[in-house]
Amino acid sequence: MTGVSVDEAMRRAIELAARGLGTTSPNPVVGCVLLDAAGQVVGEGFHAYAGGPHAEIVALAQAGERARGGTAVVTLEPCDHTGRTGPCSTALINAGVARVVIAVPDPDPVATGGAETLRAAGVRVDVGVRADEAEAGNVAWLTSVRRGRPYVIWKYAATLDGRAAAADGTSMWITSEASRIDVHALRGTVDAVIAGVGTVLADDPRLTARNLRDGSLAIRQPLRVVVDSAGRTPLDARVRDGAARTWIATGKEVGFDPTGRVDLTALLAALHERGIRAALLEGGPRLAGAFLAAGLVDRVVGYVAPRLLGAGPAALVDAGVGTITEAIDLDVTDVTQIGPDLRITAVPRKRES
Amino acid sequence: MTGVSVDEAMRRAIELAARGLGTTSPNPVVGCVLLDAAGQVVGEGFHAYAGGPHAEIVALAQAGERARGGTAVVTLEPCDHTGRTGPCSTALINAGVARVVIAVPDPDPVATGGAETLRAAGVRVDVGVRADEAEAGNVAWLTSVRRGRPYVIWKYAATLDGRAAAADGTSMWITSEASRIDVHALRGTVDAVIAGVGTVLADDPRLTARNLRDGSLAIRQPLRVVVDSAGRTPLDARVRDGAARTWIATGKEVGFDPTGRVDLTALLAALHERGIRAALLEGGPRLAGAFLAAGLVDRVVGYVAPRLLGAGPAALVDAGVGTITEAIDLDVTDVTQIGPDLRITAVPRKRES
Ligand SMILES: NC(=O)c1ccc[n+]([C@@H]2O[C@H](COP(=O)([O-])OP(=O)(O)OC[C@H]3O[C@@H](n4cnc5c(N)ncnc54)[C@H](OP(=O)(O)O)[C@@H]3O)[C@@H](O)[C@H]2O)c1
Ligand SMILES: NC(=O)c1ccc[n+]([C@@H]2O[C@H](COP(=O)([O-])OP(=O)(O)OC[C@H]3O[C@@H](n4cnc5c(N)ncnc54)[C@H](OP(=O)(O)O)[C@@H]3O)[C@@H](O)[C@H]2O)c1
Repeated sequence: MTGVSVDEAMRRAIELAARGLGTTSPNPVVGCVLLDAAGQVVGEGFHAYAGGPHAEIVALAQAGERARGGTAVVTLEPCDHTGRTGPCSTALINAGVARVVIAVPDPDPVATGGAETLRAAGVRVDVGVRADEAEAGNVAWLTSVRRGRPYVIWKYAATLDGRAAAADGTSMWITSEASRIDVHALRGTVDAVIAGVGTVLADDPRLTARNLRDGSLAIRQPLRVVVDSAGRTPLDARVRDGAARTWIATGKEVGFDPTGRVDLTALLAALHERGIRAALLEGGPRLAGAFLAAGLVDRVVGYVAPRLLGAGPAALVDAGVGTITEAIDLDVTDVTQIGPDLRITAVPRKRES
Repeated sequence: MTGVSVDEAMRRAIELAARGLGTTSPNPVVGCVLLDAAGQVVGEGFHAYAGGPHAEIVALAQAGERARGGTAVVTLEPCDHTGRTGPCSTALINAGVARVVIAVPDPDPVATGGAETLRAAGVRVDVGVRADEAEAGNVAWLTSVRRGRPYVIWKYAATLDGRAAAADGTSMWITSEASRIDVHALRGTVDAVIAGVGTVLADDPRLTARNLRDGSLAIRQPLRVVVDSAGRTPLDARVRDGAARTWIATGKEVGFDPTGRVDLTALLAALHERGIRAALLEGGPRLAGAFLAAGLVDRVVGYVAPRLLGAGPAALVDAGVGTITEAIDLDVTDVTQIGPDLRITAVPRKRES
């Protein structure tokens, strides 16, 4: 048996980390692979849910005595503070680990310091292996720590000519079932789903993460947030049903912006306060425009159906752009065919907030 | 030296045929590879321009006596009529070719019959090798023969949210230089470029095929067609300059549709009459809508810039769709990154005309 390289182990740790997506908030996703002195894998772990054991602890428990003199390969700097669990730095030292390889340092001022503690105890520490990849896997959490607000993904569905519905308002279904299944999977990776009261009044959506085949609810549901300045969400709106928690975010509760509508920066700060690290903005066009105008969108995911309408409401309205030089420039990071549709993923080129 | 297979020879012939794209109208593109009795390539040819020698004649001239007892591999059924050149069927028979392998039969009633003549002379004829590929390479010409009208490609440029310009009308430039270079290359493959008088009045475009780096004109220019019911194209419009031929297609000349605008079916019939086999419809949104509503678009090429505007004119207007079930469904056949932009190519799922 030949051992695995530290680089291979990190690739595996990043894969493991991703399994926690959607269930670890307000914590990051973290993966850990433990190698013994000979480079054999003797433990693996990932952080599965907030309050559950950290990735390092899971891997150490698996490895037992075989961790002694070995290497811990971990996607994020081990924590140094006693939260719901003891500090991972101490656990690694106590287990006799000789070396710790870290992809990304922890930017959280409360949790940081693990690398220092380890070094002080004589453990060799390397930082930066596959850092870009690990960073990408944790982008929502890292963004939320750095900006003090949730990472916001704007999702929309439109035709090739940019229409969100037909001239008579009909939009069931613009995109294919395959795309709708994909959206429900996306909902399962975030902590909150946000919609404007306009969409609630027009479509009465459930905003839950469901299995579209049999209608069953996912075990974990994102918080449903309705942005509703004056509290117009009807009492019998589906979004108020018992399938998931719901927050009708009114101007009175959150604060008003200068135009008399919900202050979106305050809204995101309030969501961050509630432990929301990743949020899916599902529209409509007007709320999306306001988020984009304020520079509060971190990723755009467009489900584009290969259909033409030539009339009907636009996918995006009032994004604060008056002339072509003010256009909100994006970089396309992925184009994937989902059934007959294209899923186009892009990130804003310059972020303003 | 081992010989090449008939299949490989056909692949090569299809490549050769493509070199004629844009210069052979009203003729098809055709490629020919001649193999001697041992299967060695002894001649290659393609039809380069209308009035020039046919592919078979070029290849036979190259092969000379080596064609005797050999195989001619040709993308389209050899012609059987005496047009600007003598029938290719006779030339192949006279050269002593023993076998002719054809990808696609000729649907043109005037030119068809080549296979029959060859068989009557004792030549072995096989039809259908790589037929789909050869058909795709000749799609414009084949469509125009079958429908009696030019093959129409609708090209548009838009942002990800489907805007053709910003709120103040500015659109220079929505898409990148790379996309604009690609459009000029596309213009070089068609016989005519069509625009509505609205676009001429708004943008005063040249509609020529140019080298965007130095502004030099391509040697061969497509016919410029302005669809202009009442003859409103200004006398000093750039489209009237001497860089290429121009046809201001008025209702008086072409005929009116029931709404009092240029009859588009009559327009395409007139263009076919003039030898136009492939036309690029460059907009604007209203003329494109009318073409789509009439089922007169064969291919859609969208240059989509990864930018958001949230306001401004739509890429497509009035396509005759009132409700979602009437949407014009397409199949995406290609998505290519052109600089920062996406070029999305699609074909209508059901064609109506
Ligand atoms: N294709 C898609 O992906 C998609 C997705 C969702 C919806 N839709 C369609 O979009 C339509 C509804 O869109 P919409 O634009 O009318 O509604 P919307 O974007 O869902 O909601 C807009 C409303 O949100 C409220 N709001 C509160 N604070 C705001 C702020 N800071 N900025 C902007 N808005 C704020 C405003 O109403 P108050 O001032 O009363 O609070 C505003 O009118 C529906 O027809 C639906 O079918 C399409
Ligand atoms: N992003 C792009 O790809 C792109 C491309 C081109 C243009 N544009 C923009 O589009 C805008 C102009 O668009 P537009 O819609 O006003 O003009 P358009 O589509 O270029 O021309 C429409 C005009 O064509 C004439 N026409 C004649 N017969 C017609 C028929 N059967 N059906 C429809 N129209 C017929 C009509 O005027 P008459 O009745 O007087 O003949 C009609 O108003 C400009 O701002 C330009 O910048 C964008």
